[in-house]
Amino acid sequence: MKNILIASTSTLANEDYLAYLLPELQLHFKNCSTILFIPYARPGGISHEEYTNSVALAFAKINKKVIGIHEFEDAALAVKSAEGIFTGGGNTFVLVSQLHKNNVMAILSQVIKNGTPYLGTSAGSNICGLTMQTTNDMPIVYPPSFQTLGVVPFNLNPHYLDPDTNSKHMGETRETRIKEFHAFNSLPVLGLREGSWLDVKGDSTTLKGNLTARLFRQNQTPVELESGTDLSFIK
Amino acid sequence: MKNILIASTSTLANEDYLAYLLPELQLHFKNCSTILFIPYARPGGISHEEYTNSVALAFAKINKKVIGIHEFEDAALAVKSAEGIFTGGGNTFVLVSQLHKNNVMAILSQVIKNGTPYLGTSAGSNICGLTMQTTNDMPIVYPPSFQTLGVVPFNLNPHYLDPDTNSKHMGETRETRIKEFHAFNSLPVLGLREGSWLDVKGDSTTLKGNLTARLFRQNQTPVELESGTDLSFIK
Repeated sequence: MKNILIASTSTLANEDYLAYLLPELQLHFKNCSTILFIPYARPGGISHEEYTNSVALAFAKINKKVIGIHEFEDAALAVKSAEGIFTGGGNTFVLVSQLHKNNVMAILSQVIKNGTPYLGTSAGSNICGLTMQTTNDMPIVYPPSFQTLGVVPFNLNPHYLDPDTNSKHMGETRETRIKEFHAFNSLPVLGLREGSWLDVKGDSTTLKGNLTARLFRQNQTPVELESGTDLSFIK
Repeated sequence: MKNILIASTSTLANEDYLAYLLPELQLHFKNCSTILFIPYARPGGISHEEYTNSVALAFAKINKKVIGIHEFEDAALAVKSAEGIFTGGGNTFVLVSQLHKNNVMAILSQVIKNGTPYLGTSAGSNICGLTMQTTNDMPIVYPPSFQTLGVVPFNLNPHYLDPDTNSKHMGETRETRIKEFHAFNSLPVLGLREGSWLDVKGDSTTLKGNLTARLFRQNQTPVELESGTDLSFIK
């Protein structure tokens, strides 16, 4: 049975890394003593070691040990034998490139579908969708494919941001970008605002946190979904 | 001798399409009666025809005829025989995919280097750099390569946006994204604010418009460059 948390962001303004999620993570990873961390997204280009160390500090608060996937010789085997898995944020292009190059994408999707508890934040959440094509990130490396885990049957836009109605900037708003995605693609896209997360338990997907989420479908007006809503209708 | 205008945006807030650039375009395209328009970036997914029609309306104000590249059977030949060329904004991934698929990238680079007057706005400016890897756009299609025209020896970030110091949003600022680019790439990146453009004449590249531009180099503190500065030192 799938057991997945898909969080818009790891960190809320003026809070510690993962702080707002720790009570949830204690439950989510209750049967895990060690979490396999996938640091491939390398925010700001930091090393796998640095990133893993900072994640270990946060998980120490709920008495979980963290091991980085880069510490294993066989990354696929590490995924297969993990008790629980966390993929952190950073750059989605870097993350997806590395997952494909290390042949981890397919096996990661498989173990998540088979029930290994998974947490994604930001880029680590984006890859839960069918493709990474609704990421906000810069294409700083060229990945071999835009295909991702597909553990939910739609795409995600983490850090979803409402248009700034006072802005005179002529660059596209997030909504305009997603609309442009739908000029070329038919997958539904869920915009998850910071502080929101999805709790996937088997076939049920519940929106958590205090905010609404915004659902975009091709050729339809976007709709706001209330926290607590079962989102299993989105496909 | 290269003769290129590289504009951050086509349109300023509350102004008509290309309005602020028309006096400059009259000079830039003074020897052209017809401009070849490349509508491949399809902003919002509009058709090549629609896009070309709206561009034709703007150029009619300075008595220039506009023909869309999609009207030609042989796109490469259209580029080769054009008096002047304009590539409009939209989605850079869509634009670059189409340029590669229609085998236009190499020939377009060549005619620009040989002196065909060129105008780019937004995505059409981004492709003047060596790669499209500092675009702001969503990866809504998968291009065969991130390589672009390379008619200037650096990369461009159009619609450059300064960080909003009041924001509590935890998504990356533009500066953070470009810094992340430099964790993996060494090319200089020029952030062009809306209302700025580069005027490339042979080996000289001048920053125009009222604003400064922001130059990012790997492992260096970004610097502001004044309007009027000769930027030929950036390589």
